[in-house]
Amino acid sequence: MNNQIQVIKKIIPSTFNIEKKEACAFAPSNIALCKYWGKRDEYLNLPATSSLSISLGSKGAFCKIVPLKEAREDLIHLNEKLLPMNHIFTQQILNYLSFFRRSGKNTYQIQFNLNIPVAAGLASSACIFAALIQALNALHQWKLKPSELSILARLGSGSASRSLWKGFVKWQAGEDFLGMDSHGIPLEEKWPELCIGLYILSQAKKPISSREAMKKTINTAVFYKSWPEKVAKDLSNIEDAISKKDFEQLGSTTESNALSLHALMANAVPAIVYSLPETLACMHHVWHLRQEGIPVFFTQDAGPNLKLFFLEKDEAIIKSAFPKLEVIKPFQEKFDYA
Amino acid sequence: MNNQIQVIKKIIPSTFNIEKKEACAFAPSNIALCKYWGKRDEYLNLPATSSLSISLGSKGAFCKIVPLKEAREDLIHLNEKLLPMNHIFTQQILNYLSFFRRSGKNTYQIQFNLNIPVAAGLASSACIFAALIQALNALHQWKLKPSELSILARLGSGSASRSLWKGFVKWQAGEDFLGMDSHGIPLEEKWPELCIGLYILSQAKKPISSREAMKKTINTAVFYKSWPEKVAKDLSNIEDAISKKDFEQLGSTTESNALSLHALMANAVPAIVYSLPETLACMHHVWHLRQEGIPVFFTQDAGPNLKLFFLEKDEAIIKSAFPKLEVIKPFQEKFDYA
Repeated sequence: MNNQIQVIKKIIPSTFNIEKKEACAFAPSNIALCKYWGKRDEYLNLPATSSLSISLGSKGAFCKIVPLKEAREDLIHLNEKLLPMNHIFTQQILNYLSFFRRSGKNTYQIQFNLNIPVAAGLASSACIFAALIQALNALHQWKLKPSELSILARLGSGSASRSLWKGFVKWQAGEDFLGMDSHGIPLEEKWPELCIGLYILSQAKKPISSREAMKKTINTAVFYKSWPEKVAKDLSNIEDAISKKDFEQLGSTTESNALSLHALMANAVPAIVYSLPETLACMHHVWHLRQEGIPVFFTQDAGPNLKLFFLEKDEAIIKSAFPKLEVIKPFQEKFDYA
Repeated sequence: MNNQIQVIKKIIPSTFNIEKKEACAFAPSNIALCKYWGKRDEYLNLPATSSLSISLGSKGAFCKIVPLKEAREDLIHLNEKLLPMNHIFTQQILNYLSFFRRSGKNTYQIQFNLNIPVAAGLASSACIFAALIQALNALHQWKLKPSELSILARLGSGSASRSLWKGFVKWQAGEDFLGMDSHGIPLEEKWPELCIGLYILSQAKKPISSREAMKKTINTAVFYKSWPEKVAKDLSNIEDAISKKDFEQLGSTTESNALSLHALMANAVPAIVYSLPETLACMHHVWHLRQEGIPVFFTQDAGPNLKLFFLEKDEAIIKSAFPKLEVIKPFQEKFDYA
């Protein structure tokens, strides 16, 4: 807790700014091509390794924050529903807000609206904390830089540090004790032909949170020792693929990284398995398409859903193979959420 | 090749024994509770780690061998079918036989009859080579000890070294350069209540042989570095569970070892995945039953099929949950194949 407050003090101006009457922000969800798994500091969400993601355009979280004058407690709404105070999500948000309160007395009404399923491996907590910190920044007129917002978003959820930008974002692990160098860095490269297909098999809440799964993996999976080596290889391959626009290399490395992450979890004791039979059926379908010469790859996060990667030229084939697929073109989004 | 001949010379008596007119043998298939994956010597099939299995009673391979006087080439039959000379299985058998021929001229008719599916992850090659070496031993009246037969069986297929006995068998990795200490050792413990359920989802030949899969894993999976550590832990837990008759410990360690083996393969580049959607559906079914308090566990080898472990008291429940299950009670087999 102490370290968290120290980070806040280093970033947020101590001079008092006028609080606006309300503020809004949007942050996209992001899908890691090279996954973040394991922390070097649990309180600051400092990662054991760097990671790299692509933001999901207009898929993510809207956050509206309104200071309450007379209320005794905060009111947290998720998708138009007021959450009970003992809800795990409310507690995460309140815990996060506690870092930023000037006095114990100010309370907020905060409304989150997500256009992706919550807690189903679609990085809902990433966009939630990235939207919240941007709304707080606007409300208090802190005028922070994106990299500073990324550091603060990370305190809520590690992968939130990557949801401050569009396009490809690398979250560098950093070395600083307080993590002042552990934040997202947007990549310059754009890839307009790149398509992401959300293959949502289940909107059910996952049986174990990614935070818990991460902890159990690190404590019990003997393979975890070699995870940083795998990440280093994959990260370099993915950055190289992006700079060369080599889709085959991007896709195959991304898929290998995801399969290895789930392999790590299968090696935990007891094993953590997010995949459903339908997940594996979809993987086999992808491999079958590849055998037929169609370049399509997948990634999977802490949930049963898959995200497919393909190029726009193959969109019709992929859509006919996966009729329920929701296709996102991260670099063609007209929607401007800034 | 040289080393293989050296091993043969050390074991098989050089004095000429009278060859019988024919010989028969049976060897059971075996299911590894702690898997063998990775070799320290590819020609001698010397393993990187020790492993431990349970033999499948009367499920396995019968082998009948008859010397041919006039024939120019061997005749290899598998399940009543004469195999073409260029068949991969024929070539494996001929390659193996070449170690034992006194002169290039003697040829054999060899008939294998298996009551398990071939090359579907049910250790068919283990029982085939174990049956063949026993038939050769009988034919030539070598009168070798089981541990010697185990060493010779290993030259055909690593896991064949465990198929010389009933019950639990440990295959010790050994340290000798020629592998003279790398053979099966039967465990004394019996466990009459132990049931194995064969859940055969697919009899299709596997897309990649375990020999190939092993090689690819070792060459490309960064997690492989930690596999010996996982095996050492699991082996000690399984031996301890057997001596204490602690079924929970036996089952959970066996399951974890199998999931970790498949995790290793998922970490290979490109990933090797033997599971079908039905495999994962069966795993989820097993986990669901466990949540309901029924102690049932699984293991999986280089194929999509699962082998369930449970105790006789739960047989009715397990059979109603998996109607197609073929149940084997390795310690209650009346069938005497010795």
